[in-house]
Amino acid sequence: MQPYFKINFIGSGNVATALALELFANKQIIEKIYSRNIEKSAKLAKRVNAIPAKNISEIGDNCDIVIISVNDDNIEQVSNSLSTNAIVVHTAGSVHSNVLSKHANYGVLYPMQTFSADKLVDFHSIPLFLEANTPANVQKLKIFGNCIFNRIQELSSENRILMHVSAVFACNFTNHMYHLAKEIIEKAGVQFELLFPLIEETAKKLQYLSPKDAQTGPAVRNDENILQKHIESLDLLPKHQEIYGLISKSIMEKKNA
Amino acid sequence: MQPYFKINFIGSGNVATALALELFANKQIIEKIYSRNIEKSAKLAKRVNAIPAKNISEIGDNCDIVIISVNDDNIEQVSNSLSTNAIVVHTAGSVHSNVLSKHANYGVLYPMQTFSADKLVDFHSIPLFLEANTPANVQKLKIFGNCIFNRIQELSSENRILMHVSAVFACNFTNHMYHLAKEIIEKAGVQFELLFPLIEETAKKLQYLSPKDAQTGPAVRNDENILQKHIESLDLLPKHQEIYGLISKSIMEKKNA
Repeated sequence: MQPYFKINFIGSGNVATALALELFANKQIIEKIYSRNIEKSAKLAKRVNAIPAKNISEIGDNCDIVIISVNDDNIEQVSNSLSTNAIVVHTAGSVHSNVLSKHANYGVLYPMQTFSADKLVDFHSIPLFLEANTPANVQKLKIFGNCIFNRIQELSSENRILMHVSAVFACNFTNHMYHLAKEIIEKAGVQFELLFPLIEETAKKLQYLSPKDAQTGPAVRNDENILQKHIESLDLLPKHQEIYGLISKSIMEKKNA
Repeated sequence: MQPYFKINFIGSGNVATALALELFANKQIIEKIYSRNIEKSAKLAKRVNAIPAKNISEIGDNCDIVIISVNDDNIEQVSNSLSTNAIVVHTAGSVHSNVLSKHANYGVLYPMQTFSADKLVDFHSIPLFLEANTPANVQKLKIFGNCIFNRIQELSSENRILMHVSAVFACNFTNHMYHLAKEIIEKAGVQFELLFPLIEETAKKLQYLSPKDAQTGPAVRNDENILQKHIESLDLLPKHQEIYGLISKSIMEKKNA
């Protein structure tokens, strides 16, 4: 039989929502949910059969794990207002575990994925990086993580931050490239959707080729003529122009490195 | 019955290879292939049942279409050394069609995809952008394009260049983000492959959300504290640091625009 855990949540944003729904779907018990936005936590609580807490002081009593999924800047303050023997964890990529060190039991559960409201994701493929203050708590969190994750790895706070930076490049910056591409293609009178096959192929290629070997385009070919044409074609979009220049330069440097 | 065309190819790189193989698989007749690299064109010719031409002067005789798929800088010179009544086309994103204007019949067939050696792609989803010097040639190229492409759109040289720039952002720059992400995550002692679910999800999200609405991460949250931590964590990677700063700034500007 799958172990079950009694969980309290603090937060009702994208990460808290995705985790709570997935845990609930996998027979874990979400006892209480608190967030500053009482309406939002009440709504989430209803979906996972939990009690919406009116005050943070109600959190941490008689449960196994308290999951703090709030804005990074608020984690420490939220943690400091708790008093509990449960394992207190946060879910942030770039916050050190020691902001929770006032508790006897604490750790981090960082699922490396981009969560948007109302967009389901496949949890089985998401890597979970964990950390805890004692080997016993590492073990407990591994068992807990296994309820919904298949790929679990221990990682120190220092390395987790670096890995989060890497994820920012792979996800947030990539998405920003899509955003800039959309603005440019629409200036050419072409639908953004026509870029989708190219975008998918670029992501899929990584299964076969390293990004270094997969690189194509004018910069990696050192095609100064085309680079110049492209820069000129962006004359009316100076911000796009600046990014075009810097990233092309970086591609050329990697190629020649 | 599918129409068939007699085709001559100049070039034996990634684009020429992908096109020739796909045309051959769809019952079109590749008569001759010429490239500066005689060995490479002989190898490709063998795969598509064509004659490897020893000299460029053998190209253009008694065929419907001459496809020039060579480095952008060489297209004009290659074109100038041809004498033919066939429709002469190039396949480049950022080269104006008028470099072919010495011919009676000319145009452009630009398939918007990233082609790597030895990596098959699904042609049916690739958008083909075309242009020709007369309406009759536009029609002929549309019929020809339909042999292997399902999504065909006419586009002027000016807009094609802009669209190519957009593709550079969506593909080449995105791939470079993967490259930088790989270097960073390996510094954290984590396998690059663990980023794949995040990378796939980031691309897939576009089916549901615009890139503006899909944006997540510290920059779009204006999370100065995390941005500062990330910049510091890249102290030993100054190039990554510079790109981190510029793209984060751009994300913040779009958010506030």
